[in-house]
Formats: sequence, C-alpha cells, structure tokens
Amino acid sequence: MSRPGRAPLSVLFYLKSLLPAADWLRHYERRYLTADVIAGIVTAMLLVPQGVAFALLAGLPPQAGLYASIVGPLVYGLFGTSRTLSVGPVSVAAIMVASALSASGLSGDYGHNALVLAAECAAIFFVLAAFRLGWLVNLLSHPVLSGFTAGAAVLIIFSQIPQLAGYKGPKEIHGWHSYWEIIGGLPQMAPATSAIGLSSAIGLLLLGKPFARWLGKQHLPEVAATALAKSAPLLIVVAASLAVIALGLGETVSRVGAIPGGMPSLTTAFWSSPDWFRLFPSALAIALVGYVESMAIAKALASRRRERMNANQELLALGAANVAGALFGAMPVAGGFSRTMVNYAAGARTQLASMITACLVGLALLAFSSWFAAIPKTALAAIIIVAVAPLVNWREFLNVWQYDRSDGAVFLLTAVAVLLLGIEEGIVLGVALSMALFVWRAGHPHIAEVGRVPDTQHYRNLKRHIVETWPGLRIFRVDESLTFVNATKTRDHLVDAAINGPGVHHVVLLCTAVNHIDSSALEMLESVAKDLRDVGATFHLAEVKGPVMDHLRKAGLIEHLAPGKVFFRIDDAVAACASEGSSVVCCPP
Amino acid sequence: MSRPGRAPLSVLFYLKSLLPAADWLRHYERRYLTADVIAGIVTAMLLVPQGVAFALLAGLPPQAGLYASIVGPLVYGLFGTSRTLSVGPVSVAAIMVASALSASGLSGDYGHNALVLAAECAAIFFVLAAFRLGWLVNLLSHPVLSGFTAGAAVLIIFSQIPQLAGYKGPKEIHGWHSYWEIIGGLPQMAPATSAIGLSSAIGLLLLGKPFARWLGKQHLPEVAATALAKSAPLLIVVAASLAVIALGLGETVSRVGAIPGGMPSLTTAFWSSPDWFRLFPSALAIALVGYVESMAIAKALASRRRERMNANQELLALGAANVAGALFGAMPVAGGFSRTMVNYAAGARTQLASMITACLVGLALLAFSSWFAAIPKTALAAIIIVAVAPLVNWREFLNVWQYDRSDGAVFLLTAVAVLLLGIEEGIVLGVALSMALFVWRAGHPHIAEVGRVPDTQHYRNLKRHIVETWPGLRIFRVDESLTFVNATKTRDHLVDAAINGPGVHHVVLLCTAVNHIDSSALEMLESVAKDLRDVGATFHLAEVKGPVMDHLRKAGLIEHLAPGKVFFRIDDAVAACASEGSSVVCCPP
Repeated sequence: MSRPGRAPLSVLFYLKSLLPAADWLRHYERRYLTADVIAGIVTAMLLVPQGVAFALLAGLPPQAGLYASIVGPLVYGLFGTSRTLSVGPVSVAAIMVASALSASGLSGDYGHNALVLAAECAAIFFVLAAFRLGWLVNLLSHPVLSGFTAGAAVLIIFSQIPQLAGYKGPKEIHGWHSYWEIIGGLPQMAPATSAIGLSSAIGLLLLGKPFARWLGKQHLPEVAATALAKSAPLLIVVAASLAVIALGLGETVSRVGAIPGGMPSLTTAFWSSPDWFRLFPSALAIALVGYVESMAIAKALASRRRERMNANQELLALGAANVAGALFGAMPVAGGFSRTMVNYAAGARTQLASMITACLVGLALLAFSSWFAAIPKTALAAIIIVAVAPLVNWREFLNVWQYDRSDGAVFLLTAVAVLLLGIEEGIVLGVALSMALFVWRAGHPHIAEVGRVPDTQHYRNLKRHIVETWPGLRIFRVDESLTFVNATKTRDHLVDAAINGPGVHHVVLLCTAVNHIDSSALEMLESVAKDLRDVGATFHLAEVKGPVMDHLRKAGLIEHLAPGKVFFRIDDAVAACASEGSSVVCCPP
Repeated sequence: MSRPGRAPLSVLFYLKSLLPAADWLRHYERRYLTADVIAGIVTAMLLVPQGVAFALLAGLPPQAGLYASIVGPLVYGLFGTSRTLSVGPVSVAAIMVASALSASGLSGDYGHNALVLAAECAAIFFVLAAFRLGWLVNLLSHPVLSGFTAGAAVLIIFSQIPQLAGYKGPKEIHGWHSYWEIIGGLPQMAPATSAIGLSSAIGLLLLGKPFARWLGKQHLPEVAATALAKSAPLLIVVAASLAVIALGLGETVSRVGAIPGGMPSLTTAFWSSPDWFRLFPSALAIALVGYVESMAIAKALASRRRERMNANQELLALGAANVAGALFGAMPVAGGFSRTMVNYAAGARTQLASMITACLVGLALLAFSSWFAAIPKTALAAIIIVAVAPLVNWREFLNVWQYDRSDGAVFLLTAVAVLLLGIEEGIVLGVALSMALFVWRAGHPHIAEVGRVPDTQHYRNLKRHIVETWPGLRIFRVDESLTFVNATKTRDHLVDAAINGPGVHHVVLLCTAVNHIDSSALEMLESVAKDLRDVGATFHLAEVKGPVMDHLRKAGLIEHLAPGKVFFRIDDAVAACASEGSSVVCCPP
C-alpha cells in the first residue's frame, strides 16, 4: 500500500513549512532590496547600544548582548513568519534574567546560568509548539501584562539610578529597603558621572521626538529622517565616550571595559551548571513574557500589511533563536516592541533587513571591539531609562480603571507586587488574581426573572421592563454558560424561586445565553428537577441551543426532567404552562 | 443624631441571627418531640460504632471520635441552619486526617496535631464566613469531587484490609508499593480475625438492604423498621465482641482497648504544637471537602421540606463545632452524607434530634466505657469498608464519561492521583485540571459565520443552514463572553476574515451570546477596528446587550469604532452595509 513518490514530496513540503525563509527568498523582489538594506542599517544603529546596555542591565558582560544581537536576528530570520519582527535582547527580559540569576540558592557560574536560561526558554518554546499550547499565553490578561510591564519599568529605572549617578546601589532590588537604599545613596553621587549621564538622558530626549519633528520639516527623504532620529542612542554613546576622553575623566567615570573581539564561538560549558532545575520557573516566566511581547507587535504589523503569521512556527523560531543563542554565549532573546517599530518604520520588507542588522553588529564587533571599552556606563544607563520610561503608562492604567474597577485593581496589584515582591512573584500573583476574577465572574452570573413584553414575543427582565407574567409560572434567564463554577448559585436561585413563591407550579429556565453545560451543571439540572418535583412544581428548559441540546439528549436529561419538558421556543412554554387569559401585567419597581 | 433604643434592638436581632436554635426552640411544636427523640436514638445507634471506627481510621484513639460525636452535634445544633444535618466524624475527612498527620516533617504529638487540624478547619470556616468566600467551594467541580471521593474510598478500603484480616500493613498508603505491600501481606492473614471480620462484613451487607426490605414487609411501624435496619453496625459490633469473648479469642484478635470513661474535658495542650504552619494546607483541604459534603446533603434535604438555609451561617456553625471539638479533644467534624440521610429518614424535625444523639453518645461513654475495650478492630474495619464501598461509583463515572470526555478524564485522573500521589495532591491536581479545562473551553469559543435564513429575520451558521449572504460583508457570532482568555483567538478570527476574504468591506460581530466584555477584550475590539481600517474594511458590532453596551459606551469604544457602528439589530447592520438586492444564497458544504 505504499505510495511511491508521495512521501519524499510531503517531507520536502514539511521541511519547507519549517523554513519560511525559503519561501520569501524565492519570491524576493528586487525593489525590496534598498528598503531592507536601509532598515537593516537603521535598526543596527539602535541595536548596538541597546545590546550592550541590556547585557549590563542583566548583569552580564557586554558581549552577551552583542552576540544575542547577531545570533537572534539571523536565526529568527530563517525560521520566523513575521517579516519585520526584530529579535534580540529586550529590556524586560533582561531585568528578569538579572532577577533570576541573583536569586539565592544558585551555585553555578553567573554567566553560564544566563545560557542555561536561554536554553530552557528554547526548550519551553519547543514544548509549547509540539503540544500546540501557545494559547496558554492567553492566561496573561491585558491588565496583568500592562501592570507587569509598568512595574518592571519602574524597577529597571530604579536599578539604573546608581549607575547613572555613579554610586554603589544594592546588588539586586528586593523589597522596600532596596528602594530606600537607592534613594538614600543619592547624596553620594559622583558629579562627573552624573553630569555625563544626565546630559546623555537630556540629549536622548531632545534627539527623540523634537529632533524627529524638526527633521520632518527639513524636506529630507523620510528614510534619512528616520535613520537620523533613530541613531540618537548611537550618537549619544559616541558623544559621551568622546567627552570622557576629551575631559580626561577615564579614571573617575566607570566604563564598559575591554570585550573580546571577533565572532562568538561555540560554547557548551553551561551544560554542566548545577542550577538547571532551580532556574526553570524563571525561564518559564521569561519565555511566556517574551512570547507575548513578540506576538503582540508582530501580529499588529502583519495585519497592517495583510501578511499571515503562524503562532506555532513563531514558537519554533523563538526556540531556535534561543538555543542558538545559548550555544554561542548570548543572553535570552525575544522580539523587541520599540525596535520592531523602528525596523518597520524604516521600511523593512522581509527578514533580510534583520539579517543585514546582524551582519552589521558582527562587523562592529570585529572592527571596533576596542572602542566599546571606552563607553561610559552612565550613558548606557541613560539609554535604558529613556527606553523604558514610556512603559510606565499612567493613562493606560486610568483607562482600565475607569472601564472596570476589578481589572484596574489587578493592574495595580500586579505592578506593586512586581516592585515589592519580585518580578516572577508579581506575574504569578497577577495571573492568579485575574483567574480568580474570571472564575468569580462566571460564578456570579446575572440571573433575571423575565416576562413577556405585552403584544410581542420578546421576553425581558421584569425589574427593567413592563411585562406580562402568569401566576404559578416563573421564567428565569441565566446570562452565562452553566458550569461547575456557577451550578450551585443557579440551583439555589431556581429552587428558592419554587419554594418561596406561593403556589409556583412551573419554573422555566431560558437558555438563550447558555453556550455550554458541563457535567456538574447537568447534575445540577437533574437535582433541580428532582427538588422541584418534591415540592410539587415542574422544571422546564426553553430555547436550548442546538449543540447544547444534542449533548443533553445524549445524557438522558429529558427523562430526568419529566414531567418537565424542553421547549423549542419560550412562547411554547408559556402556552403549555400558563392558563389562558390569566396574565398579570407587572411594572418594574 | 443617635437613635435611642435602636442599637440594642439591632444587636439583639444580630445575636439572634447568629443562633438559629433560639428561633426553632421558641417555635418548637409538641408534635415534633416524638419524631426528634426517635431520630436521635436511631442516629446514635449508628454514630457510636462510626465514631470509634472513624477515629481508628484517622489513626486516633477511639475517644477522639466519640468526643467528636458529642461536641459536633451539640454545637452544630445551636448554630446550624439545617434541621437535619448530622455533624460528627466522617470517613473521607478521617482518612484525610490520617494522611495529614503521617506526613513527614511533623515534629509535634500525633494526637495534638489532630486538634490543631480541627482548630485550623474552624479558623478557615470563620475566615470564609467573614469574607463571604463560601463560593470558593464551587471550584470543586462535580467530576473532581466524585473522582476524589471514589479515589479516597478505594484508599480507605485498602487501608482497612490489613485491619480486617489481622496482619500488619504499611503505616500509611503512599504510592504503588503500599498497595503491593497490602496485597503481598494477604498470605499472612490471621484466620480467627479474618473470620470475624468477614462475618461482620457479610452480616452488615445482609442487615443492610435485604433486612430493611424484609422489615418493610412485616407491617412494623416505619420508624421501628428504620431503627432496626440502621442499628445494624451496632448489632454487628455487639455480636462480634460477644463472639470474641465466647470463643476465648481475646489474645489473638486485636481489640480497641481501654478508653477513658466520663465526659471530654477542656484541653489546650495542642496549642503549643510546632506544626501549625505545616498542617495548614491539609486543614484547608479537609475544611473545603467537609463543607462541600455538608452543604450538598443539607441543601438537598432542606429544599425537600421547603426550609431555608444560610450558607454563611453554615460556615459559622461548622467553625464553631470544630473549635469546640479541638478544645474538647475531638477529631475534625463535618456533616456526614449517609448519617444525615438516616437522621432524616428516621423523622428528625429539628436539631433537637442531633442534641439527643449527642446526649446518648455521652451516656454510652459514661456508662459503658469499659465495654468499648472489648470491640474487635476487625469488626470496625468491616463497618468502614461497607460504609465507603458505595462511594466507588462506576456508573457515575460512565455517565460523566459519556456526557463529556474531558470531564470524565478529570474524574479519572483525580481518582488515580488520590490513589497514587496522595489525597491532597489528588484534589489539587483535580482542581487545577478542571480550571485549565474551564479556561481552555472559554479560550476556544465557538465562532460561527452567519447569514440570513431567506424570508426571515433569523441569522444562522452558514455551515449548517441555507442562508443569504452579501458580497463584501461578513457577519460572525461568538458564542462566549469576550475576556482575556479568548481575546486573541477572536481577534485573529476577525482580522483573518477581513484579510483573506477578497474585497471584504464590512465585518460585523454579532454579540447576542456576549454577556461580558473585560478590559483585555475591549482593547482587542479597538485593535480589530484599527487593523481593519488599515486594510480598508470597517468593523461593526450588533445586538450588544444593555449592560454590556453601557460599559462600552463609558469606555469610548464607539469613537474607536468609527466609521464602524453599533447596530441595535443585525438587520439594521445588513441594511446599512449590504447593497440592495446583492444577496447570494449560500448552501452548507
């Protein structure tokens, strides 16, 4: 029964689906080339200072960030389905790496453990892809993610203040006292370092929006204007380095120091780290947050250009980028939000732009490695602070708070927990809170008693509308699927209605809003039917949706309901249960 | 502004509400008395052997169970709102106590730690009552509870086999090897003990349903028949004790041994146990399972007699019963399922029946304490096995499995986890699984593209019905509330529809089944509107429910939708978006 020729073809097709680059390279159009080259250059100018800065933020030597800026875009470019996502070191993941690596109880080498984290992130991505568990990231709700990002940004800013002002801060931030220590240390700030740091920050702010706006008015080609505006961090780093040399401050201002020149080389020493098990929960948090950040921006941009993305292939691509990173000594990577926007705005059409970025970073490492040594750390701190400050988004918090108090509370509590308890603790607390809220809401469904709007076939809440009701008949509508979280509540409501109303003979449950009935709710419906029979009333269902009805029929609920029935339309239920002409008009209170 | 005379009255009212006994005692009718006395006697005849057996099951001296059978009903009788619930030692809680107390890492006295558990259960009940968190027990879904009960019952049966057959089994059951050890020990069974144990079990089975059925045919008064049938355990215990004495087996058959006579006395020694913190998770599990079991039976019986219960007052009553139990040396108590049925069937009208039961148990302890010493343990093992065997309910599993495979899987996995991993581990795993399933379901909503059934105003799934559609217009119905768990899925579906359909100008989301939109979903709707605008399409909503609309209006979604609109009825949307007479009839595939 073998089908010759078929298997090799399908294997080929499968392999091609694993390597989206094969597709876009084959259909590459010449007109894309200029755009990709320019976007590659612009993004590289942003990525070089970011790579060094985020490595230091993670407590790692600068080359860990630069290697990540080479390997990440190269490998993602081959496997990723987004045309514009810029993969590399990102700020939030960097602070999560720092927090994971400075946890107590670890005995391995700090640098090796960073590679362990990257390898574990890769393994998590692969497992999520293999079991198609990408939907798990949906557990991170919008308020949790926003609160988490805001909290992490404040944490990052605090962690960079001692760096910016040239004094010794706490080794890691953990709880109130760390913030007091940072604020209390301010009087010991070093004047020269602070001056260079603050000038860098002010320079970045001025070169940001105001400069871009001014460039826009100068009738420059748009791409040139973007390139100039986005090279601000690179210009600031060069200017700060030159200032330190020119002013002879080499001794007083702390600098990055020598980094090994040349390309990253294969390393497997991290394999023997004793901390694989202990680092796993941190890797899980880093991987999930990295995946969410990458997908959010990549999807938004893909839909703008009507491009398609594949969530599972994205997991594979991020996994491949991280496993390659681990092998070449790079910190964990993900898709960066702002950097991807720059890549997109600079005109990137395909992942060739990312590959050009990677080559340029490699070139910088080859040719200018000695120059990196001269960069003052305070300028990098300024770059980090200016980059993450917009993540502390008060307006977003107010919007969420106004829309929904409980979502706002989740936002705020997640942010506070990140600041005071720790980064992973904050995200776990946030997820737990939003899950509890979700279950609480589903567990407290809106149950309305309804009546018929006179002279229509509409049934509405009798607390809100003037409706007809019938003595001995009560009709309830539950605005939620019936599941274990609300079965008890619904049961109590229905049984109370029969027990307390004088002379109730029929109770009808209107199922228009019921999309699913699970086995706990099924048992509940059976017990309601039985309890009502015990007190001389009959329990009916009405307007049950098709798929739900199929399910109930299979489970034999119809027999349990007897003498109660399932009515196709609520009007049929009224016709069967209410005596002709007995209706009473009922006004809302 | 003080209102004299008002405050004392409301305090009185408040105190009265805390003590439901004040109410039923005041309205006590003479005709209830006979019924209550008879029910009290019948239940006491069941409770005395159960109290001793469940104490041994928990690894405690028999008096811990007898004290619980006195203090539990007395205190619950004062505070509880159920007229018939029989509070005292229960089998599942007993095995949970045994499992909690034999965990490694505990350093306190075994007996004291049982009182710590009772005190912690009480504290948990009080906290749940204070914060009105009784709804938390809804997290225990029907399949989890049934799977848990079945697993615990099998565990209890295995734990009693060595007791029944008179050989030494494992100290506690933990994992596969414990079951092998029990089965492997069978050849070492003691003939005399096994004979008495098996005879007791067979006697119980015969005195159970067959005897009751026979009694029913003898024209005895119903109450007398119930009393005789339900005193089977007591008769068996007496018979087994007499047999051991008559046959001179006192040396070979293991017996309960001497217990201190007289009433329980106040004890506070447990207060100094070093294990309060470690025992807390176990106490939480015991309290939740106990509360669920109590409420399930109490509510079912209350609704039969049109009586009202108050879930919060129940928490207070169970808390009071446990705190009193801890102070008087009793094991944790809850409402027992089968014992409550006996109490109800024997005719109990008020909690006076429970109080009479408590007095009778006290009397037995005063007058016959030396008799307890002669009870053979194998007879108690037989009582336990016969009592829990019906909890292994295969038919229920098959029903759940047939109704819903995933609920069936949760049932089975919970039972297996209880057996192989441990009791608390099993329940935690079950809750986690059912929560994951719940979120997964909500996260994978049914999204149908709909069209109009010709010549009607009905809109139905175009994969199932013959409907009209309109070029350039696509209408989707999501059968689930929009929340963070399904926001991404819904977004992808809607945006894909606009990107992939050729010439799609309008996408309408029909919100008839949407009961709530959280802030993540709100942001999703804004981003869909924006993404569709970017590709030249317009996003509309239709038939949004009143409360949801109020919410959306407040959040300013209407402005974000523009030029999209929110249509009151789906027909309005079609009239506005589709060109006249352009409809295409579309048949299901």
